[in-house]
Amino acid sequence: MDFHALHRTERPLLLPNAWDHASGAALAARGFPAVGTTSLGVAAAAGLRDGAGVTRAETVALAGKLCRLPCLVTVDIEGGFSEEPAQVAALARELAGLGVVGVNIEDGRGDRLAETRHQQELVSAIKNAVPGMFVNARTDTHWLGIAGDDEALSRARAYVRAGADGIFVPGMTGAESISTLVSEVDKPVNILFSPSGPSLSRLAELGVRRVSCGSLLFRAALDAALRTVDAIADDEPVATGIIGYGDVQSLA
Amino acid sequence: MDFHALHRTERPLLLPNAWDHASGAALAARGFPAVGTTSLGVAAAAGLRDGAGVTRAETVALAGKLCRLPCLVTVDIEGGFSEEPAQVAALARELAGLGVVGVNIEDGRGDRLAETRHQQELVSAIKNAVPGMFVNARTDTHWLGIAGDDEALSRARAYVRAGADGIFVPGMTGAESISTLVSEVDKPVNILFSPSGPSLSRLAELGVRRVSCGSLLFRAALDAALRTVDAIADDEPVATGIIGYGDVQSLA
Repeated sequence: MDFHALHRTERPLLLPNAWDHASGAALAARGFPAVGTTSLGVAAAAGLRDGAGVTRAETVALAGKLCRLPCLVTVDIEGGFSEEPAQVAALARELAGLGVVGVNIEDGRGDRLAETRHQQELVSAIKNAVPGMFVNARTDTHWLGIAGDDEALSRARAYVRAGADGIFVPGMTGAESISTLVSEVDKPVNILFSPSGPSLSRLAELGVRRVSCGSLLFRAALDAALRTVDAIADDEPVATGIIGYGDVQSLA
Repeated sequence: MDFHALHRTERPLLLPNAWDHASGAALAARGFPAVGTTSLGVAAAAGLRDGAGVTRAETVALAGKLCRLPCLVTVDIEGGFSEEPAQVAALARELAGLGVVGVNIEDGRGDRLAETRHQQELVSAIKNAVPGMFVNARTDTHWLGIAGDDEALSRARAYVRAGADGIFVPGMTGAESISTLVSEVDKPVNILFSPSGPSLSRLAELGVRRVSCGSLLFRAALDAALRTVDAIADDEPVATGIIGYGDVQSLA
């Protein structure tokens, strides 16, 4: 199914996010029609910082691997790894050449937000370069905790005018905020799942069209590794029945 | 502390195995004095098969990252990524140059075992190239299920004669087998922890000097990611209190 159409199905698109080939392959094998990437996971796996614009090479390399899997692939490109629209357009073309069908581009820059007009230029540059690419425009108003619902809505509208296909507001978890965004924006709204926030069903009721896992799966994975070795060290029981050696080998 | 000395402490060395920078950094931050690598994890993360001798580049790249962490690093080099002693020696020199203090070299080749004399040549080549390198000679008698305790003991003795500093028999879990190996081999014995096998304390009682996690942490991690997204999909509770975004960023 076309990636745009996955945002118009009865239930919202639950998008799991991979950080390496194994996680992507396991998620694709689980039947998820589309898999995203998590920039935190990609950066951490490589020993680099997230959101610092330093993982372009790792991001492209992972995209290439994921595009060989039986799923659609959308890529978290942070702020585009450049402030030059032509460079961001070149990245979009490179990813499209690999088979990537969507990107997330965020307006957070460190602890501030990019200027709205500049961010619109980056969104437009991608759409002009690869018109079929699903551009999920992310505003970090709530993620950075430096602006509220009004600024998020204003930026969402601006990014839609610039050609964005969807709007992503990570950190927005309030039902009323989400409902308002959904009703006021004429494109699919994407919310970041939070263990302490609304359930998938509740987000569906609110009209959300895409629910992303962000870095949650990566963090759950890393956490499980640490808990497992702690259990061994403490002579506590270690879970059996987890994915086996042969099943991991079959992901290659 | 010197890596060799970690095999002579009161409790056995519990060696957790990393597959990327994040897992290694998190384990080092947990206070483990030494971290190993898991060839299954390294291969799977890259979309390659374990034990096929195709991850030399990924293995060296990871070793380089791990050696910048505050822990000693020992590397799983599968069968050495070459059957040429000179090439295996070159790999050992390259790893030592990065700061690696130990390697695991295995005698499994697909579903068979390398000829004992040939494997001895590879072990000797490493020791001659880097005398201080802790060479943990792994025999896959039990791992492949194609030979028993006698063959493991015979190979262990042969590898010790070739210069091995330690002996690793993954898949050996029987108390009597382990005790015999410990008493008959004049070097530290390493056993792979199994959730269904003896506990760390029990392995200590049996005289084991190193307990490796192998691919268990990697598999527990991947499994947790899948369980988390399944829980989200099913509107079931998702664990809170796992490692947070900021803590992951601080690993870079």
